[in-house]
Amino acid sequence: SHKEKERSSSHGKRGMTLEEDLNETNRFYLEKGKAVIHKKPTPIQIVNVDYPKRSAAVIKEAYFKQASTTDYNGVYNGYYIDFEAKETRNKNSFPLQNFHEHQLIHMEQIEKHKGIGFVIIRFSSTEEIYLLPYNAFKKYWDRMINGGRKSMTKDEIMQDGYPLTLGLQPRIDYLKIVDHLCTLSDEGTR
Amino acid sequence: SHKEKERSSSHGKRGMTLEEDLNETNRFYLEKGKAVIHKKPTPIQIVNVDYPKRSAAVIKEAYFKQASTTDYNGVYNGYYIDFEAKETRNKNSFPLQNFHEHQLIHMEQIEKHKGIGFVIIRFSSTEEIYLLPYNAFKKYWDRMINGGRKSMTKDEIMQDGYPLTLGLQPRIDYLKIVDHLCTLSDEGTR
Ligand SMILES: [Mg+2]
Ligand SMILES: [Mg+2]
Repeated sequence: SHKEKERSSSHGKRGMTLEEDLNETNRFYLEKGKAVIHKKPTPIQIVNVDYPKRSAAVIKEAYFKQASTTDYNGVYNGYYIDFEAKETRNKNSFPLQNFHEHQLIHMEQIEKHKGIGFVIIRFSSTEEIYLLPYNAFKKYWDRMINGGRKSMTKDEIMQDGYPLTLGLQPRIDYLKIVDHLCTLSDEGTR
Repeated sequence: SHKEKERSSSHGKRGMTLEEDLNETNRFYLEKGKAVIHKKPTPIQIVNVDYPKRSAAVIKEAYFKQASTTDYNGVYNGYYIDFEAKETRNKNSFPLQNFHEHQLIHMEQIEKHKGIGFVIIRFSSTEEIYLLPYNAFKKYWDRMINGGRKSMTKDEIMQDGYPLTLGLQPRIDYLKIVDHLCTLSDEGTR
């Protein structure tokens, strides 16, 4: 996540990062009473804290820890929602090493407990965004594990995923697709 | 949460803090495939980071931020679960100023979206633990807002809440009570 922030500053005038767009979107959903979905704070290993008299505690030494779960979770119409968001500068494929094994394990557990798990990915050069349900994503992850290619091609993503167009309010209206996934989940056809 | 950690060290031999017990419990639930519930990382405002060559980024200045949500959330049997955990050293009442208004607002939103919201509170001197469903908790919060007492008495907590006994595996088996709340939620009688 701190890496994503570094990357965002090099974005410059090209607009907001995927994370910023999703945070805006979630603020909009919350305000309109559509869903309660938040980004989890970045996990930090705190090593040294100063407690000055009469002022706030200052963390003097700390390190970024690897998250054990995904970036976002919350509730929508009684459904547990859980997803990871990632960007790439690649043009024709999405590298899978952007994800960590424990995130896949987490999403597997979410599905098992009847939550709705997915990834939202963006090709930052073209600003194309896709929502890929966990089961589709897992197919490509397993292919890599079994010695196949270490990325998903854009054609594969277009085939198995749902395109998300950038709007104003909300910026990325992913709940439309989540609605559809919830229906599939109820029908047990996901 | 950093305050809770300070408090815990003064606990000394009296055992684990409520947070440690709940983290253990959640690890057990996860391992046994019963639920996926995690504590959210403590939110930190990062001000200054060093990026030394060939080694990990070091956070040199950061501050604790107030959380905008509750401590724990996750999924259990398709239900969205969300709760806050707090301890007191008081013997006969639980002070409400341990909670923040935005946590109440968050729990209100959770209920509206058909999630299961509650608080787990511990009287640390006697190690008594109670689960209080959001609607019961809200009653006492509203009493305070309307000029009433700034705490819940232990009698009130015993009447409206569910006692949780300390065990070994899991340490605090709160899912038993959550099961009951889910049933009430389905019946629309909560
Ligand atoms: Mg991410
Ligand atoms: Mg707490």
